Amino acid sequence: MLAARDDIARGTDDVLVVYADIPLIKGATLAAMRSELARGARVVALGFRAADPTGYGRLIECDGRLVAIREHKDASVEERASALCNAGPIAFSGAEALSLLEAVTPDNAQKEYYLTDIVEIANARGFIARSLTADEKEVMGVNDRAQLAAAEAALQDRLRRRAMAEGATLVAPETVTLSFDARIGRDVLIEPNVVIGRGVTIEDGAVIRAFSHLEGARVASGASVGPFARLRPGADIAANAKIGNFVEIKQAAIEPGAKVNHLSYIGDARVGAGANIGAGTITCNYDGFSKHKTDIGAGAFIGSNTALVAPVTIGEGAYVGSGSVITKPVDADALAVARGRQEARAGWAKAFRAKHKKG
Amino acid sequence: MLAARDDIARGTDDVLVVYADIPLIKGATLAAMRSELARGARVVALGFRAADPTGYGRLIECDGRLVAIREHKDASVEERASALCNAGPIAFSGAEALSLLEAVTPDNAQKEYYLTDIVEIANARGFIARSLTADEKEVMGVNDRAQLAAAEAALQDRLRRRAMAEGATLVAPETVTLSFDARIGRDVLIEPNVVIGRGVTIEDGAVIRAFSHLEGARVASGASVGPFARLRPGADIAANAKIGNFVEIKQAAIEPGAKVNHLSYIGDARVGAGANIGAGTITCNYDGFSKHKTDIGAGAFIGSNTALVAPVTIGEGAYVGSGSVITKPVDADALAVARGRQEARAGWAKAFRAKHKKG
Amino acid sequence: MLAARDDIARGTDDVLVVYADIPLIKGATLAAMRSELARGARVVALGFRAADPTGYGRLIECDGRLVAIREHKDASVEERASALCNAGPIAFSGAEALSLLEAVTPDNAQKEYYLTDIVEIANARGFIARSLTADEKEVMGVNDRAQLAAAEAALQDRLRRRAMAEGATLVAPETVTLSFDARIGRDVLIEPNVVIGRGVTIEDGAVIRAFSHLEGARVASGASVGPFARLRPGADIAANAKIGNFVEIKQAAIEPGAKVNHLSYIGDARVGAGANIGAGTITCNYDGFSKHKTDIGAGAFIGSNTALVAPVTIGEGAYVGSGSVITKPVDADALAVARGRQEARAGWAKAFRAKHKKG
Repeated sequence: MLAARDDIARGTDDVLVVYADIPLIKGATLAAMRSELARGARVVALGFRAADPTGYGRLIECDGRLVAIREHKDASVEERASALCNAGPIAFSGAEALSLLEAVTPDNAQKEYYLTDIVEIANARGFIARSLTADEKEVMGVNDRAQLAAAEAALQDRLRRRAMAEGATLVAPETVTLSFDARIGRDVLIEPNVVIGRGVTIEDGAVIRAFSHLEGARVASGASVGPFARLRPGADIAANAKIGNFVEIKQAAIEPGAKVNHLSYIGDARVGAGANIGAGTITCNYDGFSKHKTDIGAGAFIGSNTALVAPVTIGEGAYVGSGSVITKPVDADALAVARGRQEARAGWAKAFRAKHKKG
Repeated sequence: MLAARDDIARGTDDVLVVYADIPLIKGATLAAMRSELARGARVVALGFRAADPTGYGRLIECDGRLVAIREHKDASVEERASALCNAGPIAFSGAEALSLLEAVTPDNAQKEYYLTDIVEIANARGFIARSLTADEKEVMGVNDRAQLAAAEAALQDRLRRRAMAEGATLVAPETVTLSFDARIGRDVLIEPNVVIGRGVTIEDGAVIRAFSHLEGARVASGASVGPFARLRPGADIAANAKIGNFVEIKQAAIEPGAKVNHLSYIGDARVGAGANIGAGTITCNYDGFSKHKTDIGAGAFIGSNTALVAPVTIGEGAYVGSGSVITKPVDADALAVARGRQEARAGWAKAFRAKHKKG
Repeated sequence: MLAARDDIARGTDDVLVVYADIPLIKGATLAAMRSELARGARVVALGFRAADPTGYGRLIECDGRLVAIREHKDASVEERASALCNAGPIAFSGAEALSLLEAVTPDNAQKEYYLTDIVEIANARGFIARSLTADEKEVMGVNDRAQLAAAEAALQDRLRRRAMAEGATLVAPETVTLSFDARIGRDVLIEPNVVIGRGVTIEDGAVIRAFSHLEGARVASGASVGPFARLRPGADIAANAKIGNFVEIKQAAIEPGAKVNHLSYIGDARVGAGANIGAGTITCNYDGFSKHKTDIGAGAFIGSNTALVAPVTIGEGAYVGSGSVITKPVDADALAVARGRQEARAGWAKAFRAKHKKG
């Protein structure tokens, strides 16, 4: 802490010590610690009532004041009988913080500095120290990957409950992964097995179907995504648009009512309102060096299995024949077809099979 | 209830009152309530023994008869000591139903009609009223989205257990979502992370691999679906057929032993017995106005990345070259190829890279 | 057991009896049973302390020695008070095994041979019999599919904890399915909803993103797989290579730094270091009879929606235009394009719509 001596010396505000291995602590708890400082305490330690206190340091109280934090091994039998344990986080009044910290010495068997000594130092100076109690789950420590997963599970439970309380329907909340910053509107329906990554906004009444994966995307009211859809950063799905299965959208605006229903990659593109993108359509946005843009006009129809080689523009209401490779702009209301001519050889398949059966 | 006065007045059958917010109630429980009516009771209320009865109305019994249903706040200390709570559902003898309902009055502090008053009214008339007890979980009430999810989880648990009891193997049942009407045969294997929506039939010995999503589909004996397959309504997967990854089937018959193994969309189609559909095959079934049919004969071979522009017919045993766009019928046993001619420019790529590195 | 009389008669080693319906028993437990034999016991039975012992046979001990195994129905009130139950597995000293087995007779009401009689026979001969205790979960019996799923869940819990203890981060371990033989390195990150089948090796620092499915594959350090990726047997993903969404890799080497980002099928292939495979690329590896190989050189660029008709070779640094069907070899550093010519008909789409609106 003294590495921050210059900042602490300013003494202009409360100093709170929190730990990276206690990731579930709530803002409200930190605010409550500051409130105690505002009410006159100079030191506020956070505790919890442990189901099994063995091994934890204890908060020692007397007449409602915190008088010491005692390591388990140093605690008396009487002190050990208490289940009020030290959670770690501690707050100091800014005016006293530096002076208290400087009074901590390594005069102990381990020759270490114990931040917890500050409680006794404060008491010796006649300052008030107090404790606050948090739920044990909120201050669980993470010491290994299994505990990290348990903390993540606790956070997910919190995030799912918040989303439901705010009006989203999660059919199977235990199968939905939510980022802390997910913004999910009212009457949104989220089916099972969905991952919502960072920076996602889902507006009122949108539907996210099973096996969908969203990051950095917006889904507007009335839009439907999935099953098996992937929205990558910059995917902007407008009202009543529809993104279907095995579809990837990246840095693309899918305008109102447009449909990308199957097996497509739409990247660096605009798909105009009401346009229909056939199954297997690929925007060829990358040439090995740069990304190029595809612009599809409102009401356009892109036949299935089409490659749109960017940069390219498809005009409003234009029609692209299935299986085309489009490299040149298509005018509004025009038809474009770019495919090979179909040729046939009668009986060839029969002969081919016969040859292989012999071989 | 009196909105249904005309129907109730007929008095021809038992009247059961059930609540939309108690979705897990079983048919067997309702049948048991009717049995009590058949045995002479005129009113039958459903109760449950609450783990924590605080706040619930109580069923007040005397000598095996139900004498009243008392709101928690109106119950005596003695009555509150009982954990037998009112679940809500109630049944009346059809002959008495209307007369009992009409006797309910809003003569109380709240000026409301309490259906539960009927128990005391019936007793006053000398009728027998009784209670039946259900499991607390079966009559859990749904008041918010978190409780709705809990009810769904309880239902899923019931459905999964039923499927296993009937002979299906669910590797990780807690990851499988089942519709109430799923028909799942014996020795079916369902891998983790599968969603079975409405109207699905899976016959004996079929395999549904991980990350599959089925709705309105049939999967016959010996067929295999997934991983990452989506069967939409009308998908009919015949015996020993195989549907692989990133494949969508809609309104299509996949006949015995046919294979659609990868990255395909097969809609409004028939795939004949033993046919092989290459990776990336798309049936182009929609022209922006109508859906058209693709018919693929038995034993046909469709090369990869082929677009079949419907309506179109591929004859039995025909062979379609990879990367083709097929717009005209292909005769049985014939070869059809429809692709561009390959052209090369030596050194072009090297020059292209050199230009970009300079730029 | 006497079906194995000839082998048991050799008497050269310990004989352990284990049951197929107790699948979670650990090697360490079997080793501990052998240690007891090595310390002088001739018979060692495995027990567990049952939460609810009703119905289980009891291990009857006296002065630290096992004197009998008693069926629940034959046990005295005193014996039933003990929660030490018979788990089933039992071990014999090899020298005595056959003689003990032959002494078992069907002289009982059921006229059946009880293997458990051996404990009393051994005691009658003055041999030492002992019991060892396992955790109840470890020796849970599987009698139906629901119990099989519970055993699988217990095994998965064990496998996930092992992977985390060995240094992998599982964001949501409860959604990850692991094969018993999965080899997972340090600082591997596994996102939610992943299935790891048999024969998978994931090296240090690799990332497996959500909704991925791996079998028989290797993922090297720094490589990234998914979301929505499927690695089938023979997929070998080298260092820093990247496999993206809706991609299937089968029997293919993806060399260092190569990318297959979207909607592709790469089978029976080599993708050279640093090559870039565009969205929708399909290796057409099967002609209906044989599988053929695709060889893509280092640094090659395959444009999107390309079909590579195997056997075919793409030279180092070559460039294939989007939407091509490649059937002939492409030289190093060359450009190859194989697509139809784009044709346009002005106003066609407008007329097409007008016609359909009339109709």
